[in-house]
Amino acid sequence: MNITHIEHLGIAVKSLDEAIPYYENVLGMTCYNIEEVTDQKVRTAFFKVGDTKIELLEPTSPESTIAKFIENRGEGIHHIAYAVKEIENALAEVEEKGVRLIDKTPRAGAEGMTIAFLHPKSTQGVLTELCEPSV
Amino acid sequence: MNITHIEHLGIAVKSLDEAIPYYENVLGMTCYNIEEVTDQKVRTAFFKVGDTKIELLEPTSPESTIAKFIENRGEGIHHIAYAVKEIENALAEVEEKGVRLIDKTPRAGAEGMTIAFLHPKSTQGVLTELCEPSV
Repeated sequence: MNITHIEHLGIAVKSLDEAIPYYENVLGMTCYNIEEVTDQKVRTAFFKVGDTKIELLEPTSPESTIAKFIENRGEGIHHIAYAVKEIENALAEVEEKGVRLIDKTPRAGAEGMTIAFLHPKSTQGVLTELCEPSV
Repeated sequence: MNITHIEHLGIAVKSLDEAIPYYENVLGMTCYNIEEVTDQKVRTAFFKVGDTKIELLEPTSPESTIAKFIENRGEGIHHIAYAVKEIENALAEVEEKGVRLIDKTPRAGAEGMTIAFLHPKSTQGVLTELCEPSV
């Protein structure tokens, strides 16, 4: 598998309205996009940092996996997303190597990307996303 | 504060010997350095990914903060380290903006860097490291 870079880091927050000012005023980043991902029940805010991004994730429903994450562990880093080429091949390759897939087939994510999650039980405890940016 | 990029992501693992093969054989990365940081009671393994790095952290003592992290939360993402210039000024700036510092003055970290940690209670739940690479 050819990982070109870390596409983004997903960070669970209770409120974008509270978190964005920290990233902008304290860390000096600029939020360039806010987007709702309906099927994930989250609102996301994006910041560029070098060749990667910070993606803040605010739950829009108590049923959201992000709401459950915050309830269990508090706010914090939720996942790492690696940029790959040919995501279908990458998924098949990691599955063949014993990784348990959360998404058996890639699906639509934020920012027009095609994404799939790998289960943290088979990725050394790290919830891991593979994603292929749209061209 | 001028953050140029994410210098690395710290990931707590029980065993480098178990984790390194996952990063090398499944994700296709190459471990280019293993280093013990005695005062942190950890052994670290580094992988380059785009302009950032993955830093695996294995505790070398039950007293290590990484051992306690794993005991409380399991293996997983431990911290984000942002590369900054003039780390003393950056620390003073974030403290003035209300961030609680774990390290009041910068200290030596792995790979010859000068580092300081910010407390997750004042960084939206994310254990955050500022670091200045040696020139």
